[in-house]
Amino acid sequence: MSKLRVAVLGAKGRIGSEAARSVEAAEDLDLVAALDRDDSLETLKESGAQVVIDLTHPDSVMGNLEFCVRNGMHAVVGTTGWTDDRLAQLNSWLDASPSTGVLIAPNFSIGAVLTMKFAQIAAPHFESVEVIELHHPNKADAPSGTAARTAQLIAAARAEAGSPAMPDATSTALDGARGADVDGVPVHSVRLRGLLAHQEVLLGGEGETLTIRHDSLHHSSFMPGILLGTRRVVSTPGLTFGLEHFLDLN
Amino acid sequence: MSKLRVAVLGAKGRIGSEAARSVEAAEDLDLVAALDRDDSLETLKESGAQVVIDLTHPDSVMGNLEFCVRNGMHAVVGTTGWTDDRLAQLNSWLDASPSTGVLIAPNFSIGAVLTMKFAQIAAPHFESVEVIELHHPNKADAPSGTAARTAQLIAAARAEAGSPAMPDATSTALDGARGADVDGVPVHSVRLRGLLAHQEVLLGGEGETLTIRHDSLHHSSFMPGILLGTRRVVSTPGLTFGLEHFLDLN
Amino acid sequence: MSKLRVAVLGAKGRIGSEAARSVEAAEDLDLVAALDRDDSLETLKESGAQVVIDLTHPDSVMGNLEFCVRNGMHAVVGTTGWTDDRLAQLNSWLDASPSTGVLIAPNFSIGAVLTMKFAQIAAPHFESVEVIELHHPNKADAPSGTAARTAQLIAAARAEAGSPAMPDATSTALDGARGADVDGVPVHSVRLRGLLAHQEVLLGGEGETLTIRHDSLHHSSFMPGILLGTRRVVSTPGLTFGLEHFLDLN
Amino acid sequence: MSKLRVAVLGAKGRIGSEAARSVEAAEDLDLVAALDRDDSLETLKESGAQVVIDLTHPDSVMGNLEFCVRNGMHAVVGTTGWTDDRLAQLNSWLDASPSTGVLIAPNFSIGAVLTMKFAQIAAPHFESVEVIELHHPNKADAPSGTAARTAQLIAAARAEAGSPAMPDATSTALDGARGADVDGVPVHSVRLRGLLAHQEVLLGGEGETLTIRHDSLHHSSFMPGILLGTRRVVSTPGLTFGLEHFLDLN
Repeated sequence: MSKLRVAVLGAKGRIGSEAARSVEAAEDLDLVAALDRDDSLETLKESGAQVVIDLTHPDSVMGNLEFCVRNGMHAVVGTTGWTDDRLAQLNSWLDASPSTGVLIAPNFSIGAVLTMKFAQIAAPHFESVEVIELHHPNKADAPSGTAARTAQLIAAARAEAGSPAMPDATSTALDGARGADVDGVPVHSVRLRGLLAHQEVLLGGEGETLTIRHDSLHHSSFMPGILLGTRRVVSTPGLTFGLEHFLDLN
Repeated sequence: MSKLRVAVLGAKGRIGSEAARSVEAAEDLDLVAALDRDDSLETLKESGAQVVIDLTHPDSVMGNLEFCVRNGMHAVVGTTGWTDDRLAQLNSWLDASPSTGVLIAPNFSIGAVLTMKFAQIAAPHFESVEVIELHHPNKADAPSGTAARTAQLIAAARAEAGSPAMPDATSTALDGARGADVDGVPVHSVRLRGLLAHQEVLLGGEGETLTIRHDSLHHSSFMPGILLGTRRVVSTPGLTFGLEHFLDLN
Repeated sequence: MSKLRVAVLGAKGRIGSEAARSVEAAEDLDLVAALDRDDSLETLKESGAQVVIDLTHPDSVMGNLEFCVRNGMHAVVGTTGWTDDRLAQLNSWLDASPSTGVLIAPNFSIGAVLTMKFAQIAAPHFESVEVIELHHPNKADAPSGTAARTAQLIAAARAEAGSPAMPDATSTALDGARGADVDGVPVHSVRLRGLLAHQEVLLGGEGETLTIRHDSLHHSSFMPGILLGTRRVVSTPGLTFGLEHFLDLN
Repeated sequence: MSKLRVAVLGAKGRIGSEAARSVEAAEDLDLVAALDRDDSLETLKESGAQVVIDLTHPDSVMGNLEFCVRNGMHAVVGTTGWTDDRLAQLNSWLDASPSTGVLIAPNFSIGAVLTMKFAQIAAPHFESVEVIELHHPNKADAPSGTAARTAQLIAAARAEAGSPAMPDATSTALDGARGADVDGVPVHSVRLRGLLAHQEVLLGGEGETLTIRHDSLHHSSFMPGILLGTRRVVSTPGLTFGLEHFLDLN
């Protein structure tokens, strides 16, 4: 079997350099180019890359994607800052190249993506849902962006299903005891030396509880998702937003 | 809105009596009959039941279902012992009554059903998967039936996805340390006074782990699943096997 | 070996009746009296009780204890509301009966007592300590009394050891995200259908974390502590406050 | 306040170099020497070291300790392989230098030491105790040495207290389901990509469970224990074996 030819943009960054190594180590992938900011995009064409992994910056990603799509190269994109305008622009390029696929993923951790998806699926089936996130004490924001996003997805899933308000008889409470309220979902933030990034979704119903816990110990956790996206984007024309669409959730 | 008229068969059993109470307590359901083994099935017709919840016994369930389906009553069934022959017979009755729905559920605990489903979905995306089940020390079998079934589903999902064998460099081990082998998935059984019925699926990949834990504290945990099945079976003609099909998993 | 003769006061109450059954079931104990509020204390003398388990009420406990100590009967006491005045009074009775022992225990759950003790011991050795308590949603107060007490003990142990303030770089937070502040220890309260009473103490230091979790599933968890107190109080003259002193912690 | 003068032996090793950095970073400690295998011990005298941290090798530690004790320098020792003969020899040197202290610690992780100690204290008070250890899949032995040691300590504590056998009604089991038997304590070994080194002690009694969990994420977890030993050994003449004796456990 011939290997899939893959290029990495942003190959000198922390995640980019690790992605280049991971592509090199994969038996079915061939790293044909590893570019940094000063390298010319023309190199991509010369390399024969079939998939371009873009781990650069919101400032450069649009130019990179225009080049890739126009040249029929599929793309896997890890930058943030996607607005409706940007997505519309990208879609117009894809319309003109209908066999090309682009995956944009705000989070390449399969564990994080599954946690959010499972929380959404399960939330309407339980009376109570709360989120606990636990991080190292150098973190500036509380709750974490992932926890806030998870709580929003839970709240949206429950609203769509017509779930009633969660039961809570608390009448006397110290300030903060019941956590932050994110769209009606309590979120608790623990900050502890020794921890990295962890999240628990607790769901409770009559006589049972279900807990989904994600422990992230290293940014190498992004690699399996990046490689999965690389392998699947070649057979998924058009724009895919979110790694969850490649995880066979049904 | 008119209430859904519901009958319970096996209404003097432990689960059946609780199901009858749960139907009575639900605002959208009307308990119109609660029969035990000596009561005539004709009572079901007289009661105007739209859905019949059968929590009886493998010996009586086929007769009950033939009566229900022939009379156009939907059924929610919690008995076990379903063979291919029995299912074929049931399907032939349903063919003759195409608007009638029957749900058979080996497990009505939504938490247990979701745990198994999530484990199946996630298993191919991680290098390692193990199962720990924890029960009270009066339990006779190890591992639990649910844990063995979960491991089989995990193994099947990985086989279908072409997942490689799990990494394990163990070269020196005490007998039993690495658990029981169920289709290649290690399963560990803890027996501890004070526990009831608990199960953890641990999934691990590069730099991250995902844990799905189900704690079952009371057989009342079956009630939300029985009520959910009751509400949905009326709009799901034919045979549905497994509560997971009513949980909007995609 | 002759059995220890034990009486229970408050034997018709929820805990008292269970204590009476537990004494009866223990091979080394003999239930010689089970009194309720209208029974005469003289019955205790007639019964030959060596130990009296008092599970009555703050209104009656002082009279009961005066009677027991004056008659040389040891006592195990589960009532609350102990003031310095009351303790001084009790000690004066004990001074006059130097071979008699009284155990007063605010909490007879060995798991709860050990959790608090272990948290106290460990707290000065870690940079960060937080408490998460999780209860059913019908609970009125947040945090639970046990969690607040645990946090106070942690704070006191750290103050005595001269521990510095815990690290926390949080600069942007939603209200309540970081929990309630109990003497400088963050406490988080989760309310979830399906839960009973649970508490986790999380301790974190350089490169490691230690978690102590107590799950309480039934008030029968008080029985082993009551029986332990009963067996030990006969050889522990004077007043002992707190079951932890009988747990061989060193 | 003058700083405590500290030397590190084995200062080019993985743990030794980190210990040297930790001493340098501590406000109350002064790193006066950092020696590797080819350096002369005389340097220690010239440096004025009050405490010597020995992170070398069983081959060199006896020579190092003889030198330190004879010269009145306290020592904190992390090497393994201590036999009764070696300890007797060390004690004879200490007898001749009665104000000198030596701490030998098989494990400097405070979390690991406390987990073992708490398990020992709690084990006789619960009917059931099991150990689960979870490690990365490159580990060769199962169970881990720490888990086996923990189980032995639990078994010894229960034997001393006269605890009866644990309840276990298992009559039908797959091979290995109930774990390895270490002195009667079941030990379960999980091997999962993404994990490092983790251990759980589960204790269960009537109506409650207590869980003690240690997560070790980096060998930097040894540093707080090494610094604690350094500070305390100067006021603890003679031989101390085990960091637990410096943890104020009572």
